[in-house]
Amino acid sequence: MRQAGRSLPEYRALRAGTGMLQACLDPDLTCEITMQPVRRHGVDAAILFSDIVVPLYVAGVGVDIVPGTGPVVGHPVRTAAEVDRLPRLDIEQVTPVTDAIALLLSELGETPLIGFAGAPFTLASYLIEGGPSRNHERTKALMRSAPEVWHALLGRLADITSTFLQAQVAAGVDAVQLFDSWAGALSERDYREFVLPHSAAVLGRLADAGVPRIHFGVGTGELLGAMAEAGADVVGVDWRIPLDVAARRAGGTHPVQGNLDPAVLFADFGSVESEVRRIVAEGRRTPGHVFNLGHGVLPETDPDVVTRVVELVHDQPV
Amino acid sequence: MRQAGRSLPEYRALRAGTGMLQACLDPDLTCEITMQPVRRHGVDAAILFSDIVVPLYVAGVGVDIVPGTGPVVGHPVRTAAEVDRLPRLDIEQVTPVTDAIALLLSELGETPLIGFAGAPFTLASYLIEGGPSRNHERTKALMRSAPEVWHALLGRLADITSTFLQAQVAAGVDAVQLFDSWAGALSERDYREFVLPHSAAVLGRLADAGVPRIHFGVGTGELLGAMAEAGADVVGVDWRIPLDVAARRAGGTHPVQGNLDPAVLFADFGSVESEVRRIVAEGRRTPGHVFNLGHGVLPETDPDVVTRVVELVHDQPV
Repeated sequence: MRQAGRSLPEYRALRAGTGMLQACLDPDLTCEITMQPVRRHGVDAAILFSDIVVPLYVAGVGVDIVPGTGPVVGHPVRTAAEVDRLPRLDIEQVTPVTDAIALLLSELGETPLIGFAGAPFTLASYLIEGGPSRNHERTKALMRSAPEVWHALLGRLADITSTFLQAQVAAGVDAVQLFDSWAGALSERDYREFVLPHSAAVLGRLADAGVPRIHFGVGTGELLGAMAEAGADVVGVDWRIPLDVAARRAGGTHPVQGNLDPAVLFADFGSVESEVRRIVAEGRRTPGHVFNLGHGVLPETDPDVVTRVVELVHDQPV
Repeated sequence: MRQAGRSLPEYRALRAGTGMLQACLDPDLTCEITMQPVRRHGVDAAILFSDIVVPLYVAGVGVDIVPGTGPVVGHPVRTAAEVDRLPRLDIEQVTPVTDAIALLLSELGETPLIGFAGAPFTLASYLIEGGPSRNHERTKALMRSAPEVWHALLGRLADITSTFLQAQVAAGVDAVQLFDSWAGALSERDYREFVLPHSAAVLGRLADAGVPRIHFGVGTGELLGAMAEAGADVVGVDWRIPLDVAARRAGGTHPVQGNLDPAVLFADFGSVESEVRRIVAEGRRTPGHVFNLGHGVLPETDPDVVTRVVELVHDQPV
């Protein structure tokens, strides 16, 4: 479960006074934060504590994560010259992350570790808009008005993302997740023309890495087929469509991951339980199902409810 | 085109120093703001300048529209007692709005006027959360944990919304739009159980009003069939799916409205033009198509681009 830490008092205590990027680049802290939800909830896999802008930051892009706002980029990237000036990621620059992975592998023992990176489209939106955007108007304008600049930018971001994920694989992660937070803002037509080739480049370069590739977005009901075609082994699904419908849209052969609505965790536990059982049942009608939330854990979630959900899922017959 | 005013300097000049609710309840101002985009862009219909919380405010609910935030509710509504204490809307309380409609009918001449109200689910989310919410967690928790409170609340909101729309029809609007901003946050299953009956009550009470009923949301690709079943004559479609696909999902007999991505207006005009032509062509493969944006006009849109889009649509052979 991504962002499980946000709801944990032990996470908030550990992060007090430490910036997000600083925490992502401190191997001991990253290891401890990654371990917290594993210890507390007994989940079957850990997901690396990181942020999608980490590879940009370590490569030298001026970006900071502002509490309450999100990633803010000092100099937005909107022209061919600005794309040219983007730094490339040297694998040595991600040593703090690979050091954290090394620590985690010994801490985790048999529990698998999932690596993590943001997809080119989502990274591009932050770079073009200069920060989080609700409507992505500058991003969508650039892709149409200057497709050569657009594809050059996404090509560079695909390089950075693949380097980052390859470093994580070399360090020993057991799976990788490519996270395209904003892809759901696009029609399938635009996704296929402007985004899919670059996400496919990232996933393609990991085809021989020997680890499953999870491809995830939110509000992507129309894009599941295209996201599977991009080279995913597992397709993430939010809560808007049933898992069996999602699996058919993804081509009928891909395992799926999801799809409990994180907001359901705020209801009485009887309601949570019936949703969990429904999802497990629908997951049985797919080529394979990794139970998860359909999006990150919301900050005000009661951690005890998360623990009970994990227990409930473990109690279901396989 | 909803919210067309936001991009107009003449609108910003008119609104300077006047709060949103104050503007919605000043008939002369409402009339003038409604007229501005009609005069400037030459659109085929006007949409009443209003806000979804107007009927709550005039009924006596403590709500204000805070610039940069949106509607903020003083005392959130989360219990049966709080639902009981909600005021009912007296048709006389909307006199400022019906007065504005009277002024508009003489200003508009042959140009039709579309009335407007927020749907019960979207109003409920503001009342329960106390303001705008990204994840609607309290709303979704209440619908599951206390379904009797939920349905009582939505029943009361359906009453308020129908009274508000009936008053607009009696005052002479030529069509009504029921706007469910947040419905796209729900799965079809939850929409059908918790929302559809109440939107259907609103639309059903307008069945004999003699005006077309438009039902609109964003990110509602999975809900189009259910939203049509709720009693819509025309179903609004955002930009995420092609219009012909949308019309099939809506049952194959309903005209559709949309679906230009508002962000496309930020691209070069050649790109805008090819998107407009594609949408017009796809609209020809539906039972009927009202050309529109797939969502409101974004504040930083160049108004001249909007005018050119209207001209271009008018130039298309019928």
